[in-house]
Amino acid sequence: MPSISTKGRLMPASPIRKLVPFAEAAKLRGTKVIHLNIGQPDIASPEVALNAIRNLDRTVIEYSHSAGYESYRKGLVSYYAEHDIHINHEQIIITNGGSEALLFGMMACFEPGDELIIPEPFYANYNSFALAAGVKVVPLPTTIEDGFALPPISTFRSLITPRTKGILICNPGNPTGRIYGAEELQRLRDIVKEHDLFLFADEVYREFCYDGAKHISCMTLEGIDQQVVLIDSVSKRYSMCGARVGAFITRNAELYDAVLKFAQARLSPPTFGQIASEAALNTPKSYFEAVTAEYVQRRDILVNGLNGIPGVICPKPNGAFYCVAQLPIADSDYFCQWLLESFQLDGYTVMMAPATGFYAQPESGKKQVRLAYVLEKDLLQRAVVVLKEALKAYSGVAERP
Amino acid sequence: MPSISTKGRLMPASPIRKLVPFAEAAKLRGTKVIHLNIGQPDIASPEVALNAIRNLDRTVIEYSHSAGYESYRKGLVSYYAEHDIHINHEQIIITNGGSEALLFGMMACFEPGDELIIPEPFYANYNSFALAAGVKVVPLPTTIEDGFALPPISTFRSLITPRTKGILICNPGNPTGRIYGAEELQRLRDIVKEHDLFLFADEVYREFCYDGAKHISCMTLEGIDQQVVLIDSVSKRYSMCGARVGAFITRNAELYDAVLKFAQARLSPPTFGQIASEAALNTPKSYFEAVTAEYVQRRDILVNGLNGIPGVICPKPNGAFYCVAQLPIADSDYFCQWLLESFQLDGYTVMMAPATGFYAQPESGKKQVRLAYVLEKDLLQRAVVVLKEALKAYSGVAERP
Repeated sequence: MPSISTKGRLMPASPIRKLVPFAEAAKLRGTKVIHLNIGQPDIASPEVALNAIRNLDRTVIEYSHSAGYESYRKGLVSYYAEHDIHINHEQIIITNGGSEALLFGMMACFEPGDELIIPEPFYANYNSFALAAGVKVVPLPTTIEDGFALPPISTFRSLITPRTKGILICNPGNPTGRIYGAEELQRLRDIVKEHDLFLFADEVYREFCYDGAKHISCMTLEGIDQQVVLIDSVSKRYSMCGARVGAFITRNAELYDAVLKFAQARLSPPTFGQIASEAALNTPKSYFEAVTAEYVQRRDILVNGLNGIPGVICPKPNGAFYCVAQLPIADSDYFCQWLLESFQLDGYTVMMAPATGFYAQPESGKKQVRLAYVLEKDLLQRAVVVLKEALKAYSGVAERP
Repeated sequence: MPSISTKGRLMPASPIRKLVPFAEAAKLRGTKVIHLNIGQPDIASPEVALNAIRNLDRTVIEYSHSAGYESYRKGLVSYYAEHDIHINHEQIIITNGGSEALLFGMMACFEPGDELIIPEPFYANYNSFALAAGVKVVPLPTTIEDGFALPPISTFRSLITPRTKGILICNPGNPTGRIYGAEELQRLRDIVKEHDLFLFADEVYREFCYDGAKHISCMTLEGIDQQVVLIDSVSKRYSMCGARVGAFITRNAELYDAVLKFAQARLSPPTFGQIASEAALNTPKSYFEAVTAEYVQRRDILVNGLNGIPGVICPKPNGAFYCVAQLPIADSDYFCQWLLESFQLDGYTVMMAPATGFYAQPESGKKQVRLAYVLEKDLLQRAVVVLKEALKAYSGVAERP
């Protein structure tokens, strides 16, 4: 039997996936599992998008242009302009979710062995795309005490080697919920310009800004026009994760052409998803206002609740719908498993994402978990109570050997 | 400005893409272009699939399981059983078209530098996926005189090196339309077993068999259970190219797990496309009977017509909806461009795919073109007349310098 490839063997299994069988077993025992572990919002997708699908008038579901429907890309130009991002439709390639935009971008920009600096904790799948592209991830540590702010420029400089070819940020951040400020982004811009790097900006949570925070796109940073790659997706914006419609955006014509060739090889992004996404451009402002108001309330319940538990530290994020909390535990993988295997309160337990999956060195996340506040408020309230009692009960439990 | 990667620079641009501006210019001049260049059928998608989309009753377009909806995979198990392919739903991963199945399969099976033997002429995008995965394509020549039959086992053996890790076939074939017979497949099975190789079988044209030809799946070959990878797609079967729903299928559990991790990194295949594809499992047999009857008529018009043109050789294929024809020309890239730039008959010209894109060495395809018979019969009839007159007119034209 032939052996599979190194990539096939090394592709990381996320710590959340390892918990799935324990969650299933808990459900079989009759325990209700409150899922704080995944960023799948319960918010309804915009009616205007769903209706476009229901009113489908095509009889042949054909390929679209490999870069996506031109009408959709032209619609996106106006959408981006409203967000201070000025581009044209020939700088946009519609992709199978933000995931494909990341994969194609990494494959088109970097040689195997090139280094990509990513502030950590970071979205776990960045590791997988980097592995697929042969890129080495170099983590840039940030701390929960600083609210995961970007470190001084000297820390960036200390990580740069002759193989450093890019920096990737997620802003607003998954898993941290941090929105980088003007001063932090200026620092980023300076180092990108100084070392002639690509800057990948994953901005899929653009709409989710709270407490008056303003999101600044990397596409607005001066003097690095040709270096910025914008990664986008409709998944979170319109609660349409399953549409699988994202975008790769660059003003660099040579890079655009290279990524377009990758896109041509896979022929077309999904037709149905594009129909829904194009219609979603007409989502009323009131939709986002309602969604944002809801998330602020959810965040406050969860984060205030967490900070009220002895030994728990959770910086209050002002973006996206995640937070990272430090718990009084030694091994978040085991604690999250124990919650599913051995704990329940009034028939409920909680599933969280061990933060070990969000660090290049899993040890760095051993005391932390990521929580997504994509559930109704009463469930979040209950989750806080469950977690509080669980931590009390856990204090005497031997950690995994 | 940072330089893009070698992959980004080397990703091949297909010869068809280079013709697009010439086709657009022809249309601007008022010439009607008969598109024989692309495998986008004009056949309507099954009503049952379109209605499932129109009757969408969801309010949140969520991620599916990374391997695809379980209900859809279970439905596929029955579909495959009807085609003599016996697998279970945990051997299927639903992908973004057959394209993603190919890319993930190559990344999971092969190390950079490994060699993959592919009978040529072959589907041009195999080159792109191989480049993305760092795999070296080793072409196995077949000839138009032999109707593109697989060569004797000695020819296979002569191509095998210590880096040979797999063989990829497309059956029924794009671009050749060939269906491999039992004896050819036995030869393939022997060499795969003898050298412990992976066998990738792209069988997306399974339904398109004519003149009583029976398609034999590589999944039925004995003694290589763990080595066969089935690549599938609903694109052609249901004329739903834009649904972007394919499948990666293997009985090799280790390989399945590796590909599932790639699939988990990109989260989910498209929800809408899966809804349509699951519903399409109930497409009545009469749909395929009508489609097949239509394609047989189209093939006969096109292929008989082509063979009636002096100097043209076109083996009559009994599968898929393509044929490869040898023309009395020296440079198919230039001839196809000339047709668009400089020729019209009664206001019509023809766009074809130069076969240079289907050979590892483009020179091998210099006298050949691929034609897809996915258009109505009267247009195909007209295309033959246009091509006949064009070849007469072209005989005096100087080929590209």
